[in-house]
Amino acid sequence: MTKINLKETICSIPDFPKPGIIFRDITTLIQSKEAFAEACRQLEENVRSLEPDVIAAPEARGFLFAAPMAVTLGCGLVPIRKPGKLPRKVLSQDYELEYGTDTLTIHEDAILPGQKVVIVDDLLATGGTVEACRKLVEKAGGEVVGYAFVMELSTECQGRVRLEADGKVPVISLFEF
Amino acid sequence: MTKINLKETICSIPDFPKPGIIFRDITTLIQSKEAFAEACRQLEENVRSLEPDVIAAPEARGFLFAAPMAVTLGCGLVPIRKPGKLPRKVLSQDYELEYGTDTLTIHEDAILPGQKVVIVDDLLATGGTVEACRKLVEKAGGEVVGYAFVMELSTECQGRVRLEADGKVPVISLFEF
Repeated sequence: MTKINLKETICSIPDFPKPGIIFRDITTLIQSKEAFAEACRQLEENVRSLEPDVIAAPEARGFLFAAPMAVTLGCGLVPIRKPGKLPRKVLSQDYELEYGTDTLTIHEDAILPGQKVVIVDDLLATGGTVEACRKLVEKAGGEVVGYAFVMELSTECQGRVRLEADGKVPVISLFEF
Repeated sequence: MTKINLKETICSIPDFPKPGIIFRDITTLIQSKEAFAEACRQLEENVRSLEPDVIAAPEARGFLFAAPMAVTLGCGLVPIRKPGKLPRKVLSQDYELEYGTDTLTIHEDAILPGQKVVIVDDLLATGGTVEACRKLVEKAGGEVVGYAFVMELSTECQGRVRLEADGKVPVISLFEF
């Protein structure tokens, strides 16, 4: 069986969502059954030794990889969402965007005290979203034991530096741009 | 092993997102590793004989169940999203809400001609969202061979009637409210 080059399944779109940004589109990866299964398998293989109880992921692209990982690894899945989307009592965290701020929320009872949590998203760029996720997981009583991404923008962004400065937990990505 | 009662893992929230609506919250199902795995297993078991090539799902809660199903069944996964979220050329479909209209989009090259598609979402209510998904899948060249939901609001809504009127394909749900 030929090994799949996952990076080659990503479609790069210049000037989306605005001029100067190259958008790395994972929909071409997930619409290939072979590539999607292989990406999930590689993520699971890298995360298994961290022995998470819970996979947490920001909406919406994070869900695409976090959900299969949670089922295969035997973990609960905790969605982290925009305000107004989660129906029960939430904890909130603001975070900075290039211009202005945004907010993410988690159900306050989503994680049991001391549960080990891996945070999953499709892409690590500046790390702002995922740092807000870490703060929410910790506010909810969980312990972040790792981060896993399909891909990482290593040249322009400082996401890995930021996450590694936060604590001594692994930052996993399958490939870089 | 005690059989899990999936319906009992759903949290019902009165008056969310607005007065008079009882919101059926699947986050309490998916945060239980046993319930989440069992729901995906039951969905997969029901869908397998339809032999889909592709699982398609509307954002964002649909992704939570569609993604594990796609990996386990060996299918591609096609996300159906709000306008502005998909970066390449899309097909659009308007659909009616209780007040006003909304729009969903699919990448125009997401499905190969004649591919068999199962549409997955967490909840079947009026069927408006999923009917828009069916139209998008058909515009993109796919053939809808079934619908699968974790749960179905059978008392107040007419979702099943609407979908069954559209065509002779199975409408699967694991339990009803």
